[in-house]
Amino acid sequence: MIEGDLEREANGIYDRMNGIGAHEVIIETPDHQKDLGGLSDAEVTEVLFAFKARIIDLRNDLRFRYVLLFKNHGSPAGATLEHAHSQLIALPVTPRQVQEEIEGARRHYEHRERCIFCDIVMQERKERARLVFENEEFVVFAPWAPRSPFETWIVPKRHESNFEAEPKERLGYCAQALRSTLKRLGAALGDPPYNFIVHSNPLRDASSPSYHWHIEVMPALTHTAGFEWGSGFHINPVPPEEAAEFLRLVVT
Amino acid sequence: MIEGDLEREANGIYDRMNGIGAHEVIIETPDHQKDLGGLSDAEVTEVLFAFKARIIDLRNDLRFRYVLLFKNHGSPAGATLEHAHSQLIALPVTPRQVQEEIEGARRHYEHRERCIFCDIVMQERKERARLVFENEEFVVFAPWAPRSPFETWIVPKRHESNFEAEPKERLGYCAQALRSTLKRLGAALGDPPYNFIVHSNPLRDASSPSYHWHIEVMPALTHTAGFEWGSGFHINPVPPEEAAEFLRLVVT
Repeated sequence: MIEGDLEREANGIYDRMNGIGAHEVIIETPDHQKDLGGLSDAEVTEVLFAFKARIIDLRNDLRFRYVLLFKNHGSPAGATLEHAHSQLIALPVTPRQVQEEIEGARRHYEHRERCIFCDIVMQERKERARLVFENEEFVVFAPWAPRSPFETWIVPKRHESNFEAEPKERLGYCAQALRSTLKRLGAALGDPPYNFIVHSNPLRDASSPSYHWHIEVMPALTHTAGFEWGSGFHINPVPPEEAAEFLRLVVT
Repeated sequence: MIEGDLEREANGIYDRMNGIGAHEVIIETPDHQKDLGGLSDAEVTEVLFAFKARIIDLRNDLRFRYVLLFKNHGSPAGATLEHAHSQLIALPVTPRQVQEEIEGARRHYEHRERCIFCDIVMQERKERARLVFENEEFVVFAPWAPRSPFETWIVPKRHESNFEAEPKERLGYCAQALRSTLKRLGAALGDPPYNFIVHSNPLRDASSPSYHWHIEVMPALTHTAGFEWGSGFHINPVPPEEAAEFLRLVVT
């Protein structure tokens, strides 16, 4: 809007912002009636393996810096197709918001010489009040400061910064955790609209000791309103301990 | 979650984060059938004057650092009351998002020795492609990079950082601009749900040569979905020039 050079100065990370990208839709099942939470563990594993295969393929295009994998389920969560699907958007920049999460984790690492997500996994498994589910490789919990009611995170127990580095066997454990989470949310809240986002290290960054990939699931139960737009703060009337207890106890 | 001192270190501006605040609802009219866009200029002026009076009163409480004024109209925009109303939330911190806007403006000022909002007003009045309405004191336009379709900004022509510093006479011009904007949006889009947010300088900051208060109106026509949650980027299919032309030509 004002001179281009100032814009670039002020937004260093957007130097490479251009119109280049990729948008792919991942069809999760051939069955129009089913949704992701209703598939078998083996089927969800195949979906996650498709995520991984697409990231690895898109990484070959050097113009891409970040691949955002996400799912919109239900119209209030922004879904425009009914058939079960996830989406992938490859971007020529790492979004500032992603960069901030990575930076925050890096600062923690510099102070403690430990990954903050590894610390969180340890704390949640110890305290158990916010824990929803765990298997050998993954832990599912309500984060300490959830932005929306029933926000739920799926985090690998073993440290790994890049989703696409996970072997298929571990994706199987992730699939079980994801499916269990979606089934619990579906049963507890009556098939709520939701988004999930795969948070992973940027494509061109080396494997990081301070960042830790994970999935954030956000039921779309509240609206983004003036206060959220104006402040960046989120109003959430449901404490994570209550949400987690509800999700733990639900029969799926 | 992890040790408190690290949290504070990492989030310097949240040092004062505590449970203290105020939340007020401003009833815009005694008439349950009317909405803000349907009031007279004089009535809207009274609403804006009430905003100002409340900020000035709340400023006396030294625990408050920022007063966020906003309106949620319609259920998809987060409104839970039908009767026409705006809201005010007084916070013990200036939200980081607000701080970032102020910082960005400060950086522009350091480079150019001019307020970026004054520059934008000048540019929009010159180019006219994104202009919606203007009167002696205020200009209404579609911003160059709108986050949502038909996002519209109302900006005073004369430099002023603090909303509450405006004399009532100028609030009258603001009321005319706001009412005209809401009527145009209502006529063009069929009473859409919307939010507006008053962006103003923090309570305890001296009048600033680099920051410039304004109102941002955001029709809630799209959903915050996975891509927006994950990236902080916004997908907007409507170019601001088209939105502005549509709003200019609408008969109110």
